[in-house]
Amino acid sequence: MEALRGDRPINKLLVQENSSGGGLGELLARARENGVVIQQVPKPKLDEVATNRSHQGVLAYVAAKAYVELEDLIARAKTSYPGLLVVLDGVEDPHNLGSILRSVDGVGAAGVIIPKRRAVPLTGTVSKASAGALEHVDVARVPNIVQALQKLKKEGFWIVGATGGAKQLYTDVDMTGNIVLVVGNEGAGLARLTEQTCDLLVKLPMHGQVNSLNAGVAAGILLYEVTRQRATRATAAATATATATATMSRPE
Amino acid sequence: MEALRGDRPINKLLVQENSSGGGLGELLARARENGVVIQQVPKPKLDEVATNRSHQGVLAYVAAKAYVELEDLIARAKTSYPGLLVVLDGVEDPHNLGSILRSVDGVGAAGVIIPKRRAVPLTGTVSKASAGALEHVDVARVPNIVQALQKLKKEGFWIVGATGGAKQLYTDVDMTGNIVLVVGNEGAGLARLTEQTCDLLVKLPMHGQVNSLNAGVAAGILLYEVTRQRATRATAAATATATATATMSRPE
Repeated sequence: MEALRGDRPINKLLVQENSSGGGLGELLARARENGVVIQQVPKPKLDEVATNRSHQGVLAYVAAKAYVELEDLIARAKTSYPGLLVVLDGVEDPHNLGSILRSVDGVGAAGVIIPKRRAVPLTGTVSKASAGALEHVDVARVPNIVQALQKLKKEGFWIVGATGGAKQLYTDVDMTGNIVLVVGNEGAGLARLTEQTCDLLVKLPMHGQVNSLNAGVAAGILLYEVTRQRATRATAAATATATATATMSRPE
Repeated sequence: MEALRGDRPINKLLVQENSSGGGLGELLARARENGVVIQQVPKPKLDEVATNRSHQGVLAYVAAKAYVELEDLIARAKTSYPGLLVVLDGVEDPHNLGSILRSVDGVGAAGVIIPKRRAVPLTGTVSKASAGALEHVDVARVPNIVQALQKLKKEGFWIVGATGGAKQLYTDVDMTGNIVLVVGNEGAGLARLTEQTCDLLVKLPMHGQVNSLNAGVAAGILLYEVTRQRATRATAAATATATATATMSRPE
């Protein structure tokens, strides 16, 4: 209850099945108000997780870092043009989330959006796998990925989803504007509704026998392609300006 | 002994300290002949690894897949131009080796070269992390990475090492010829001698607070940049040929 009152970031609340009393109703109400994911579990499960068994029927997984609000993340992403955000549609492996946070920091993107359910939250393992990048990358946790994408569209972002079923290669698409990259679950890829919400679908070329890459690697390749395209465009623009200036100032 | 006689691929042999007799001398001689890494360990270590304690003072880690000979790997890499190989200079995390094998399969590169010591061999965890790619990628395991690189140079490969200390960006270097990409250890990066043996050093742009990427992600980004450059060049060449042909066949 104190963690909830203090607005400590909570990944999940485990509550013992058929339990009541002792202020549990008030606690659950507060948790729902804060948008915390609540899961009913049998007592043996709680005993197993709380190794000292003194759980009183409730157990909270506290996040390794506080989440930011989606609105704040979008506002910050828009302060620099072109903006760049990553949406993870159900990444489950903490090592993948960690390596993606590291790549997001590497390209200087504005942050990451993850769903509240069926995805790994910001745990200690994620923090470790991020090699410290978690401290520098903003992460928003939303109840609904499709609604978040629709909000991002309204704010002027172009939604680019990665899926093996895409027709276009990632290198053939212009990603120099405001971009949201969407990467799916390790096994299932993008959810159908997520895929339908994307403005554009891209694929990585697969010349081998296995038909996909590690999700963290795929995200890294896409992020660095965005960076490459933007640097190339900036160079071309600078060259064009320099040429134009040279032409204008040519002595007659 | 039977595993050694049958040429089963062995990652490492653990031998009990101060142990002798029972054909141990013959076994060790055979192991040395086969180039197997041998490690002397105290008995409690053997007891711990061999959970049933029936180890008789010797324990072998068998590889998840047989290694190929360096010479065979080079010969195969040269059958397609441009060739592409990856050298891992001390990658220790099995998840990274697995994700790299997946990326190597993804770009259709010829294979991977790893060192016999201070690096993760082909274990079950690597196999699992590779999502099946291990079955389709050739891996050579060599006693000395620098000697392997020198051999590759003689065979006409250009050695490109990835290090944060490089002056050139990976996107500013022509990687359309025969290329060996060299990626270093997760913490220490490339060994000094390895770095000195490279023809060229490249870096990834780092715009954030953490100064490197996950090794598997970095390898994936480099491999897909090679693929992008080669595809771009192939397209340009095809366009040039088409233009030339069009010019030549223009009706007079």
